[in-house]
Order: sequence, then structure tokens, then C-alpha cells
Amino acid sequence: MSDEKEALVEPRLLRGFRDYLPEQVIARQKMIATIKAVYERYGFVPLETPTLEYTETLLGKYGEEGTKQIFRFVDPESNDVAMRFDLTVPLARVVAQYRDLPRPFRRYQVGPVWRFDKPDPGRFREFIQVDLDTVGSASMVADAEILAGICDVMEALDIGRFRVRCSNRKILNSLIAFAGIEPERASQVFRVLDKLDRIGRQGVWEELTTGRVDASGDVIPGLEFDVEAVARIDEFLNLPGGRRAEVLDAVSRLFNEVPGAEDGINELRSIDEYLTALGISEEKVVFDVSLARGLDYYTGPIFETILLDAPEFGSIFGGGRYDGLVERFLGEKIPATGGSIGVDRLLAALLKLDVVELKPSTAQVLVTVMDRSRLVDYQRVTRELRLTGINAELYLGEEKSIRKQLQYADRQKIPVAVIIGPDEFSCGEVSIKDLMEGARRQHEVSERSEWLKARFGQVTVPREKMLEVIGEILDQELTVTK
Amino acid sequence: MSDEKEALVEPRLLRGFRDYLPEQVIARQKMIATIKAVYERYGFVPLETPTLEYTETLLGKYGEEGTKQIFRFVDPESNDVAMRFDLTVPLARVVAQYRDLPRPFRRYQVGPVWRFDKPDPGRFREFIQVDLDTVGSASMVADAEILAGICDVMEALDIGRFRVRCSNRKILNSLIAFAGIEPERASQVFRVLDKLDRIGRQGVWEELTTGRVDASGDVIPGLEFDVEAVARIDEFLNLPGGRRAEVLDAVSRLFNEVPGAEDGINELRSIDEYLTALGISEEKVVFDVSLARGLDYYTGPIFETILLDAPEFGSIFGGGRYDGLVERFLGEKIPATGGSIGVDRLLAALLKLDVVELKPSTAQVLVTVMDRSRLVDYQRVTRELRLTGINAELYLGEEKSIRKQLQYADRQKIPVAVIIGPDEFSCGEVSIKDLMEGARRQHEVSERSEWLKARFGQVTVPREKMLEVIGEILDQELTVTK
Repeated sequence: MSDEKEALVEPRLLRGFRDYLPEQVIARQKMIATIKAVYERYGFVPLETPTLEYTETLLGKYGEEGTKQIFRFVDPESNDVAMRFDLTVPLARVVAQYRDLPRPFRRYQVGPVWRFDKPDPGRFREFIQVDLDTVGSASMVADAEILAGICDVMEALDIGRFRVRCSNRKILNSLIAFAGIEPERASQVFRVLDKLDRIGRQGVWEELTTGRVDASGDVIPGLEFDVEAVARIDEFLNLPGGRRAEVLDAVSRLFNEVPGAEDGINELRSIDEYLTALGISEEKVVFDVSLARGLDYYTGPIFETILLDAPEFGSIFGGGRYDGLVERFLGEKIPATGGSIGVDRLLAALLKLDVVELKPSTAQVLVTVMDRSRLVDYQRVTRELRLTGINAELYLGEEKSIRKQLQYADRQKIPVAVIIGPDEFSCGEVSIKDLMEGARRQHEVSERSEWLKARFGQVTVPREKMLEVIGEILDQELTVTK
Repeated sequence: MSDEKEALVEPRLLRGFRDYLPEQVIARQKMIATIKAVYERYGFVPLETPTLEYTETLLGKYGEEGTKQIFRFVDPESNDVAMRFDLTVPLARVVAQYRDLPRPFRRYQVGPVWRFDKPDPGRFREFIQVDLDTVGSASMVADAEILAGICDVMEALDIGRFRVRCSNRKILNSLIAFAGIEPERASQVFRVLDKLDRIGRQGVWEELTTGRVDASGDVIPGLEFDVEAVARIDEFLNLPGGRRAEVLDAVSRLFNEVPGAEDGINELRSIDEYLTALGISEEKVVFDVSLARGLDYYTGPIFETILLDAPEFGSIFGGGRYDGLVERFLGEKIPATGGSIGVDRLLAALLKLDVVELKPSTAQVLVTVMDRSRLVDYQRVTRELRLTGINAELYLGEEKSIRKQLQYADRQKIPVAVIIGPDEFSCGEVSIKDLMEGARRQHEVSERSEWLKARFGQVTVPREKMLEVIGEILDQELTVTK
């Protein structure tokens, strides 16, 4: 016996991994379905790629991206393989591998990616991304459609006020010239600018010059840029906000003398024009040219999205234009633009904003079982409901008391219960409990036990009126589907 | 330059892995959505578990399932980990780990699994399964609902004639007693019976006795069972088919003297009764007691499903009752029943039966671009279509000629194209091409080039009639959604 005990395996998860129990999957599936529906309306098509790739596919021949923390191993056939850490590199491989894909290739991909980061609350080693990219078009219409799509997604999710911020890496490159900084040090500047929201203009100034001490007392060394250069950067950060055209006019005036500055400005002018044609207001997409984003590979417009009613979640959608996508495979550049939705973060925000309710079941009706010898009769009732398109569960648990079975429905948040006892069978009737109504009224009574005793909203009706009453409760037209 | 060339990474897939390009993803997503909708109608709830688990979770403490070919490695934290090879073991871990899950727990899970098998055409190392299981109910209603669900799935997929075959491992165990064979050799017999469809009664007889030579000349050694025992097995295999009750009556008569035989028969009698209450006809689910299934862990009803119009795909759904599920984790048995749908096989069958058409896009309308200087006007038209719920793509490719843009729509199987040239702009009109009609009529003309020249089904209408005409072509009610 003790041997047997020792042989037991402890049921547990690897650190940084998690299960999605039904209530989470249901909420997430619904959210992802909305995202997909919106981008399909824009003509995007779905792609799926394998979990495992050759490591050189993911990291490059010389491990250019070798600093990435990934799950990498030697497979039983001695291949050096790894689990994908994003959905962009596999897209690049696909574009390079299947030369007859349509151009532009506008695809969305939904799937998990794996990173061997230090797990934190809210940071996992396996997480789901939704990526949207248009590969093979240099037109700013492509960028505008990605941005219009994310606005439509936010509205379809009913997530409240949001703001898409849009900038351009070309404008930021002009800033480097304007400030008289060597181009090689540009990414140092961008990484500091990326912190602007958190540390403010003063903090940016300090980090670009002599350094600063942060709130926790840590010393952040300064980059020791020339004060005159930093003053010019500060002048840029101080540009007024406003309507999209106004922001661009101000940048244009400031960068009057900077060669090439108009390139980036004109790209954003086009985006402004296209967004307007697509009905995207000034409130939804703003131009904020201080937005830098940390990554090196952006080459044109860049963007991110914050929730104005839940800013603590940070950017829930980010991306931009990049053109080195397939270079690793083909040695040529292809214009591409796209972004990535942080699905977990977005769902957490929806829950926090009470837009989404966690429900452990999609069943709409529970058929309770009072008399087990009449199981087939309960089955017939259940079937009748299903034939009208209702998700109906027949109670299959151990509990014999109807009270306990109703508690089960309550816990599963199933809105309606059907009860048929000997009396009802003999009269050809069914009792219908409106548990949503019960749940609503629960707030009106002081004690949960009182509510459980009372259980509002029960009606007893002839069997043939069952669908009519349930349809009213569910606010749904019920018609037999087959 | 040659250095650069050498640094290029060849875009390629690992052996046994594959990409799903849009046309495959679109078809598969639709199929999976149907399966989910049906089982949600039965009250099943979704679950998702991680890709990686501790190896002991998957294989048991002493590697009981160690013969399994899996992707296993040591992670950067020195854990012995592996990619899941099925969805049943992770379900067992979840049931053992979260003790407050509802009982029974009726869950579906859709997801990839990984096996390091030898790749074949049609056999991959990463493939998607849809699993359905009810854990914690000993009632045959649970089995009946799984079976009724698969029948509903087949009908919803419009896959033509199918047959679910159902047997019971308890009846097969009685067969072993009836034949006078030692129980320890039962699984040897079951593995031979599992080949009955392929090798026939004669082949089974030979493999159970002296062996046989198969079609390719290979010698299959016999199991050297006593001829009298094998004659009794053959008598069993020779039992008449017929209605479900008749099959059970025949088994009952044959096994009259066998202790315990009635257990399995009574389970199937209950299933018969419950299936009838759920409206599942004798044609859809038959009792075929010769069905054995190879795996050891079944303990009660077992089942599989074949497509009568595409039997070459074999069983596209198989499963049964098993009760050792959580034993590895908890040391106790829990009754469970369930099955697994082979998604790739089912999709291949749907394609072969021409029930599903591969479409590389879900776009319904392509707005072509004749005059690039008026992009915003084309965008407005595109937006108008999207607002009515139509999936509309604005052509963003390089082709300037409308003919080439229409070829693109044709290749993408987008049913409708909108054309607006200078004439139409000046008259406030749009031209609408019905490309489905074109595709249909293509069969009537002898030359594809003739068809391309002719391009049937174009009408020019005032802009305000655009939605009406497109709605007619798509056979869809169009109302502005926001």
C-alpha cells in the first residue's frame, strides 16, 4: 500500500504554465471570435504554423536573436529545434516558402507562443497572441486598415474609451539628425523615449544626460548626451498635441531644415486621410510622435493602444511597419506592417471593467432529474430543448435532491432549470425556474439562505408551453431546427 | 555577397510537421465550430491545458507508458518535460488537481498533440484532436449522449451516410471465458479481433491458430490457441446482426451460461433505450459486438464511427468507457467515458465527398482599384460594405489592370467584385461582377480564355442600389450594423 502511494504522481503544472478552466476558455473564445470576425470583415485570412521549428529558422543562422529565452532542444532525430516565441518569424518563413501566396498576404494567426522568461504574476511562459500582418504592400492603406480594425475590435468588445497612439520611426530618425546625434546611437535614445509615459520629460532628460535615481533608490546611469542635443529632443517632446493634421504641421515646422523629415510626416498624412475615409475619428487614433517603441526593427509607422478606463493594463495592442521580415530567408526586403494583440491582458481588462462575466458553462437550461426511474422522459424533454437550438444539460450528477441540483445550476450560472416531478408528469406539466431572476433578486434579500429558500421565478405550465416560457426568459426566438 | 548568401536560412518545415494555409484553416475552423456547437448544445464545456507537462504526468512515475514516442527534453530549469501526446492524460491531471470541478465534468478540448511517430503521407507528428469526455458518471446516459452528439455532428456536417458501431469490453471479456481462454491472453485476442474488418473471419481464425501469410508475402505467426476455443470465437463472430435489441438477445442466448455476461449486455440495453429516447435511429448506431478496439484501458462500452460513403478513411471517431483515468494521481478509480475525433481525417473525408470547398479567403466582395488617385473613394465604398456585415477586401496589390485584379478575386474565390472607373464616378454608379455566376457559367463555355473575355454577370447600377444587388448575389439580407 505504501509502495502504491509512493508511485502516485502529484498533479501539478510546470512553473509559468496554466490551465484554462471552462469559464476562462468560454470568455476567451468569445473575445477571440470577435477579433477574428472584425479582421475577416477587413479581408484578413487565417494561417496556422507548427509549434516546433528548426532553431535556425527562429533565431537566424548565426543566432542573431540568440539572447531570446526560448524552449530549445535536440529532437530524437538530432535536429536542433525550438518552440516558436512569436508568430512573426513563422510568418516570415511561410512567406519565403510559399512563393505563390497572394501579395499582399493579409493574415491573422491565433495561437500560443513560448518564452522562457522569469514567471511573474501575469507573466507566463506559454501565452496566446493574435497577430495581424499585411505582407507585401508599401501602401499606408495597409497600416490604416490594421488601425481601423483594432478600433472596430475595441468597439465590438464594448470595452469603453480607448486610444490608439500612432507615431513614425522615420520622424524619430529625423529627430536624431535634428538633435545632431550620431545615427548609431539612435536606438539608445529610442529606448529612453519608450519610458516617457512612466518617467516623464524630466526623467527622459536625466537619463539622456547625467542619469537619475529611481523611486526604489536604484541608480540609472546617464547616456551623457550633449545638453544642446537633449534640449532639442526636449523641444520635440514639448510639441503640442491636437488634431492629427495639427500635430504633423508642428513637426513639419520644427523639422523644417532636416533632410528627409517629410517622408515620415507624409506617411502619417496619408494614414490620417485614409483613417478619415474609414470613419476613424480623431479621438480614436491620435498622432503622438513621442511614441518610440523599444524594438529595433520598425521602419515606418508604429502604434499602440491603451484603454482609457483601464490604463494600468498598458498597451493591449502594438505594432508597426517593418521590412526586414523575410531577409533572413531570401536576402531581400519586403514591406510589411502589422501588430499583436495581448489576449490575456485584454481579457483581464474586460473582466476588470465588468464587460465580461465568467460563466463556467454555456448551457442555457438544466433539466433536473427528480425521479431516476423516468430518465428517458427527462431525456425526451432535454432533446426537445436541444432541437430548438437551446444548449440543454441533463443533470447526470449524484445529487438526488432538487435543491442540490438547483445549487449546481446556480454555480454553473445556467439561467433556467426545468423540474418535472410525479405530479407534473401526471398532469402533463413542467415547472420552470428562472434562476437569472433569482440571482437578480438575490440582491434584494438580506440572506443568501433566505434567497435559497425563496427561489423566485418558478412557474408551472403545460408541457406544450415549455418552449414559449423558456424562450421568454432567455429572450430568444425558439424554433425547432430539425 | 557570397557570405551573405551562405548566411541565408532555408525556409523549411521539420519532418512530420506542416503549415495550414488559409484555405485549410478556414475549412477546418468551420468544421470545428460545428463540432463545438453540437457538444455545447449537449452541455459540454471547453477546457485548455498547456503544451508542456512534467514527463511523469504524461508517462507515469515508472514510465508505464514509456513505449510512447514523444517529444521529451530537459528544460532550462532541469525539469524532465514533454509535449502532450493526447488530451486524455492532461484531463486526468486537471480532474485530480481541481477537486471542486463539477461532477460529472463534461468537457471538450480542441488542440494539437505531438507524437514522434514515423511520418507517413497522412500521418503527422503534430495533429489536432477534438476530445469529448464525461468524467464522474457511471450512468449509460453519459455514453448515450456522447454517441447522440457524434450523430448530430455528422448530420450537421452533412457528410452523408455514416454508422456508429458500438460494442462492450465486458461482452468481449465474457467471450474469453466462453472460449475457455485464460484472461491474461485476452488482449492478444482483442488485437486480432481489431483487424476483423481488414482480414475477415478467415484471417482471424488463422492468426488465432497457426498464422497466415498476408498480401505482401509477410508471415504473421499464429497465436496457437486451441481450435475448440477459436471455434467458439468464430461462433461469436458469426452471430447475426440486426436491430440493437436483436443483437443483444443473440449474445445473451449464446452466453447463457457465462457468469457475468449479462453485465455488459445490460449496459448496451440501457444505451439502446437512451439512444431511442434521444431519437437516434437503428441505422445510425448499430451494436456490433465483434468490435474490439486495440487499447487495453477500456472497461465498458466502446465505439467507433465510419463513413459509409468514404469507408477508406477508417474510423473518424472512436472511444469508450474507462475508469483508470485519475488512478495515477489519486490512487482511486473514477468512471469516465469519452471519445476522440480525428479532425484531419474528417476534413479529408469532407473534401473527398465534396461537402466542403477549399476557399483561400472569407472575403465576400473585392473592391477593385481602377484609379489610384481616388483611393479614399474606394475606401469609403469598402467601409459601406463592411458596415452592413459584409467581409470586404480593398485591393492592395500591385496589379493596375482590372482584368488582373479580377483574376485575383477569382483565385481567392471571392464571389463579388465592385468596379468603379471614371465614368462610373461621374455618373454616381458602380459596376458589380458576379464572379460565382462567372464560375458557374465557365462550364458552359469551351475555353477558359473565352470565359475570361466574356466575364458574365456584370451590372452597372446607381451607387445607392449597390447593397441591394450585392445582397441578392450573396443571397443575404444586408442591414447597416453601426
